[in-house]
This record gives sequence, C-alpha cells and structure tokens, in this order.
Amino acid sequence: MPVDHLRGGIDLGGTKIEAIVVDGDHKLLGQARRATPTSGGPQAVANEIAGAIGDAAKLASVDVNRLSGIGIGTPGAVDAQAGTVTSAKNLPGCEGVVPLAELVQSATGVGVRLGNDVGVALDAEARLGAGRDLASFVGVFWGTGIGGGVILHGKRWLGRGAAGELGHMVVKMDGAICPCGRRGCVEAYAGRRALEARARKEHAEGRKTKLFKAMEKKGLERMTSSVWAHALEHDDELAHELIDRAVDALATGIASTVNLLDVEGVVIGGGLGTRLGDEYAQRIRDAMRPHLFVPEREPVVRVAELGDLSGALGASLLVLDRTH
Amino acid sequence: MPVDHLRGGIDLGGTKIEAIVVDGDHKLLGQARRATPTSGGPQAVANEIAGAIGDAAKLASVDVNRLSGIGIGTPGAVDAQAGTVTSAKNLPGCEGVVPLAELVQSATGVGVRLGNDVGVALDAEARLGAGRDLASFVGVFWGTGIGGGVILHGKRWLGRGAAGELGHMVVKMDGAICPCGRRGCVEAYAGRRALEARARKEHAEGRKTKLFKAMEKKGLERMTSSVWAHALEHDDELAHELIDRAVDALATGIASTVNLLDVEGVVIGGGLGTRLGDEYAQRIRDAMRPHLFVPEREPVVRVAELGDLSGALGASLLVLDRTH
Repeated sequence: MPVDHLRGGIDLGGTKIEAIVVDGDHKLLGQARRATPTSGGPQAVANEIAGAIGDAAKLASVDVNRLSGIGIGTPGAVDAQAGTVTSAKNLPGCEGVVPLAELVQSATGVGVRLGNDVGVALDAEARLGAGRDLASFVGVFWGTGIGGGVILHGKRWLGRGAAGELGHMVVKMDGAICPCGRRGCVEAYAGRRALEARARKEHAEGRKTKLFKAMEKKGLERMTSSVWAHALEHDDELAHELIDRAVDALATGIASTVNLLDVEGVVIGGGLGTRLGDEYAQRIRDAMRPHLFVPEREPVVRVAELGDLSGALGASLLVLDRTH
Repeated sequence: MPVDHLRGGIDLGGTKIEAIVVDGDHKLLGQARRATPTSGGPQAVANEIAGAIGDAAKLASVDVNRLSGIGIGTPGAVDAQAGTVTSAKNLPGCEGVVPLAELVQSATGVGVRLGNDVGVALDAEARLGAGRDLASFVGVFWGTGIGGGVILHGKRWLGRGAAGELGHMVVKMDGAICPCGRRGCVEAYAGRRALEARARKEHAEGRKTKLFKAMEKKGLERMTSSVWAHALEHDDELAHELIDRAVDALATGIASTVNLLDVEGVVIGGGLGTRLGDEYAQRIRDAMRPHLFVPEREPVVRVAELGDLSGALGASLLVLDRTH
C-alpha cells in the first residue's frame, strides 16, 4: 500500500461529528470536529460531515478529492451494501431509511462506506489498538448504553448482522428494567443512562449524593463520565454503590461470554470505560473471576487504547475492507 | 471417498460404552454397547472399548483392522494432539492424565483420535443432524449437566480449547448454587443433577410429588429423564414448577447467546432435551422471546435429531477431521 493512500474517517454521533484523515500507515494527518446539526435532517447531517472532512483535509494539507474513500461509523442499523442506515434514533430528523452514503458522496465527490459505530470502533481496537495481539477477544463499550462485539480469528463476528449485543445479555432473570424495555440486561445495571436514572430516583427519595453538584459545577445537564469520575474521586457513597453494581453486571456478562467462547482477552472502552481506566478494568477482571469456568486461565483485561479516536479510525478502515 | 471407508465411533460415558461402525456415507453398519468397567482403571476401560468396537464390527461383518480409524468421544479435558484425557471424573479410576488413544490403539491395532464427548455430539448434529442446514447455531445438551457449544461458519468454535460452557453462563447474579460451586449458572436451575437435588430438598421439607414414586416404580435410584417425563405427564406440580424454572434459565442463557452472536438457530439435545422433545423446545423458544434484542428475527429452535447416537457418530467424524 503506498503511503499516499489517504483515507477519511467519520465518527457520527448524536452530538458531534469527528472527522479524520489518515495515511496508509493509519497515521493521523488531520482531525476536525463539528456539532451534529439538530435540524435539517439527513441532508444537513451529510453537509456537516462534508464540512468536517473538508476541515480535516485542510489541516492535513490535502484535497478532499485525493482521499481514496471516506468511511462513516454511524449509530443505527447499517446496510453496508445499500449504503443506508435505519433506526439511527440518536440523529435528529433521521428517522426511516437514510441513504447516507449517497448523500455524503454527492457532497464530497468521494466514495463512501458505512459501518456501525460500535462495530468499527471495535475493528480499530482489533487492528490498531488494545486487541492487536489477540486472535480472539470480547470488546465492551461502557457508555450511555453498553455496546460490544466479539473478535474471532482476528475478525469481528457479525452473525446475521446484529451480533455483539453484550449489553443485552441477561445477568438477572426478572431483574431491573433496561432502557431497551427488557429485564435484567447488563445495560440495566451498567449503562450510563440507567445509572443516571437510578441516581435521580434515589436522590428524589432523599438519598444524599455529590453527583448533582458535580453536574452543576461542570454546567452539565447529564451525568457524563467525568461527573461519575468526580463523584467517585470524592468518595460519594451513592456513586460508589451504583458503579460497583455496574462493575458486577459487566463482569457477569463478560464472564458468561468467556465461558461460552473462551476468548483470549477483554477490551473495555466507551466513555465510562475509558474515563475510569485501568483501575476499573482490573475491578471488572476481579469481579469476573468467581464466575469463570476455567479460572486458572483467565483472559487478559485491558482498557481500549484508541480512546475518542477509535470510532473515526475504525471508520477509516472501512475504506480498506471489501467485506464491510 | 470410497463406500468401504469404514470408521469406528465410541461414545465413552460414565455408565456405558456405545460403539458403532459406519461407512463412508455415515451409514450405521454395526452397533454394540457395553458397561463401563467400575474397576481396573484406564487399561480396563481401554479393553472394554476394544471389546465393544469388536462387537460392533462383528455385527457389521467386518474385521476391526479394516477400520480406517476409531474416534472416541470422552468426558474430561482432551488433548487431541497428545491423545490424552484428564479430569474425566465420570470414569472410575481414571484420575490424572490418561493416554487413552495409545491404550485403545494397542488393544485394537487401529489408529485412534480423541474428542470431547459433548463437542463431538455437537459436531454430529452440525454435519449430519438438526444443524446440517445452519451456518451458525448454538447447541445445548440438557442432561445431568448443561453442555453446549457454538457452531460458526459450520464449525465448532473451540476458543483456547474450553469454549462451549453455556451451562455456566450466569443468568442470575447471586443466584442458586450450581453443582460447579459457582452461583446463578444456567445449570444451577436446569441441570438434571440440580433439579434432583432441589426436588429432594423440597420433598424432605414436606412437599408432595410423584417423582419418587415414579423413580421407585422404574427401579431407579436417580431421577432420570424418563422419571421427569413421567411426573410431568401425570401433572405433578413440583415437577412442572422445577422444569418451568429450568426452561426459563435455559431460555435466558440461550437468548443471551443469541443477542451476543446472532446465530441462525438453536439445537437442543441431551437426555432431558431429547426426552421432553419438541413441545419443550418450543417452550424454550417462547421463553427466549422476551429477551431477544431482535425479536422479529428469532432463530429456529429444534430438537437434536441423532439422539443417543450423536456421541458415537460425532466420534466417528474425528477420524475424518485432521483439525481435531
């Protein structure tokens, strides 16, 4: 592959669009970020994506039309063949089937490939990050929800297209209600959305906590990863209690996966996973141990290495990979 | 493959040795069964295996030394390369590392390959049975314990050698104690051993049940699959309650597996699975539904087709497969 084989990568999120330009060695040449438009629907989103990749290209001192392709990691259900995305609920005004590849291709003049946001981030960790020396591992994105996936023989296992829902493995029959509407899922105990709902409920019932003060201090309306990290650092009892419960649920779901698939490792990413870092990754490892069927050969547990860039880097890999 | 390409298959169990001879089309030419020796250790076991395959060959009207090989499915941890098995706790006097392949080879004069008993039974269902048209499925052996495995791209996924422990996926954090010593595993609710222990406990506490009368009538000391089937058919309340709980736990573990791997199907075998048949397979399917992340595309759920012969047939496949 020539070093001038330049690619674009887009991590399309509900609040921001992260754009990068990389070379054939996956070296970052330019990086830009724009806010995801809250009105204007798919065309507005495509225009902002084109603008963001234009910014990144400019910072890389290259012309957008020199890119060999642009990969986009998006929420929702992707049909890579058709270049469409559906059920991208986090994207304002993007209900129904959105021909995102075509829209961005028209706006940039460059070929576009789509992939699922969590999936491509996992691909990036597998190829360039914490999983690059592991032939098999389970990836867990501990964020607003719990995303995941399994890498087998170095490749993401897709099943019939919907594999990887580690967050919706059931760790407690008849357990807590999950944001997905089902009961007892890992995400019901560990997802940031579920954690915040539980914290608000306990607070409304009179429980003391520093979570709300931390949120206000940061000028936030949501309990972001940094709000949780702040409360944990300041020995907030409720934060510790809820995060411990999250660690237990994650560890249980991951251990079940390990018992089923006997993978070599576990890579933990996502907003909370990255923010809480190695200390909590090792807590998850410790909490897995009582559930492991072969405890004397436990998998390695690591924090994802590519951080915020995993989504955009993984998206840029779509350009290389004909199977996506 | 010539039709005279004859193979031997052995299903080595704690109570019996099932031996078959098949031709190149997997057609059963001879079948014999002997009791597993309760004394004499590995050499006695090897001698009885040789005797059983000799009986099966005689019934097939062929000479044992015409077999191109003998495959053995055994409990315990198999090192296929070394031809050894360890931790075969169900086999009397076979503690430690047993060079089973060599012992049987010496006793028969025919090359021997070893595989895990549950694993080879699953291979048989994948190649010749209920999974033969499925590119990916999860196999569940509902018996004394809960065995399992996943078939991906038509092949059993082995992980680092210990994959497939669906029975030890955790469906209830802090749940019931499992025969494996851990808590909340599928097997703690669904395995025949756990079911019997629970029934005995409830009976000792004064609960009425027909399970014990059914057992005595059949002259048995254990609650076999037929005892449970009998009690269910006679509307025994405790039997229904415990089997319903087993169905829920199995369905939860299987649904978690489907959410993780998005496989095409589920094949349910094992003593209880086969005995309770399609009615209960469909109950498991129904109980899975509330947990499925993509309920509109649920996997097919089927009973294993090869019944008691799956182990011996799968073992005979080891002779063909260089990867085992």
